[in-house]
Amino acid sequence: MANILLIYGHPKTPTSFNFDLKEKLLFTLKNKGHNVFVRDLYEVNFNPVLSSKDLEMLHNDEIPDDIKREQDFIRSADIMIFIYPIWWTGLPAIIKGYFDKVFSYGFAYKRRGSEIIGLLNDKTAIIINSHGNSIKTYNEQGMYNAMKLTSDTGIFAFCGFKTIKHLFFGEITSATSEVRENYIKDAIDQTIITIDAQSI
Amino acid sequence: MANILLIYGHPKTPTSFNFDLKEKLLFTLKNKGHNVFVRDLYEVNFNPVLSSKDLEMLHNDEIPDDIKREQDFIRSADIMIFIYPIWWTGLPAIIKGYFDKVFSYGFAYKRRGSEIIGLLNDKTAIIINSHGNSIKTYNEQGMYNAMKLTSDTGIFAFCGFKTIKHLFFGEITSATSEVRENYIKDAIDQTIITIDAQSI
Repeated sequence: MANILLIYGHPKTPTSFNFDLKEKLLFTLKNKGHNVFVRDLYEVNFNPVLSSKDLEMLHNDEIPDDIKREQDFIRSADIMIFIYPIWWTGLPAIIKGYFDKVFSYGFAYKRRGSEIIGLLNDKTAIIINSHGNSIKTYNEQGMYNAMKLTSDTGIFAFCGFKTIKHLFFGEITSATSEVRENYIKDAIDQTIITIDAQSI
Repeated sequence: MANILLIYGHPKTPTSFNFDLKEKLLFTLKNKGHNVFVRDLYEVNFNPVLSSKDLEMLHNDEIPDDIKREQDFIRSADIMIFIYPIWWTGLPAIIKGYFDKVFSYGFAYKRRGSEIIGLLNDKTAIIINSHGNSIKTYNEQGMYNAMKLTSDTGIFAFCGFKTIKHLFFGEITSATSEVRENYIKDAIDQTIITIDAQSI
């Protein structure tokens, strides 16, 4: 049984792929007896803007309340699952700001001389992304690799995550319901396999 | 004389490299007789979260007021200059949300069948980024290329920008004041060269 924190970053649209995936994955995880906490960042009105006041507090080793709340959720989690759409070959602002604010110095990483020490090194990250654009174009551009570098390497490996699984499901706006169902089945299967591998 | 829109996305910290650069660049551009409009996204309290209400309005060809305001600034500009720090190998949430919201379908791009048509094809983008992490590590990881792919290619080329100039100034947190001054001089020089090349 794993403690799972699911971070969801998609506008409230009950007919969306992301919502459908989140609901079905949640059902499966709970069915398997996992403890799952969900942070729906839109639902909880998460403010993604790191302010100068936040910076000043963090510099003085004080943690702003909204940041502390999210860090406490992370502390209790073995596995963080992220579900959000790729917008403009990157993270939606609400998800980007989650990292800008919550993965703060001293919580997610620290420096020892010029060395970076990742502090979330007991955790696994599973990132599930939809995107609208052409899979062929993204492959030709090397965009999947670039998106992995700017999140898996730049965020999760930086903070020492021991396992990082990143799934992309493309051309979602034009996908048939059959394709969407297959995507969801695949996302759930791969998530379960990744979680099970952690508990061996 | 160019019409320049400067988008600034850094928390209010008057001692920061970004603030210093913005002020000095502004002084030079105005001195050269350019029309410069500044949108300091922190100052104007820009809300970077694209909501389901925004999506619904945009879907019905209605433009939310805060988005329309920014689009009007872009319409009058020949050149867009972006000044912001790299955080987590990506854009600060307030800048990311600017693209999520303001570069909307029908304004920044449209589709013709499976083809994407960039609609900002009369404009030049100049992006000036600071970052804290090791330049050597970013080079070894291919991170500069990944950051260019996920912004220059994924955002600006996608919207048809005719010229895209992207400058990085690294290891900023440990830079001496001499290094910072050289960075600022270089950023201003390269910006002026890029602007002058557009008006030939």
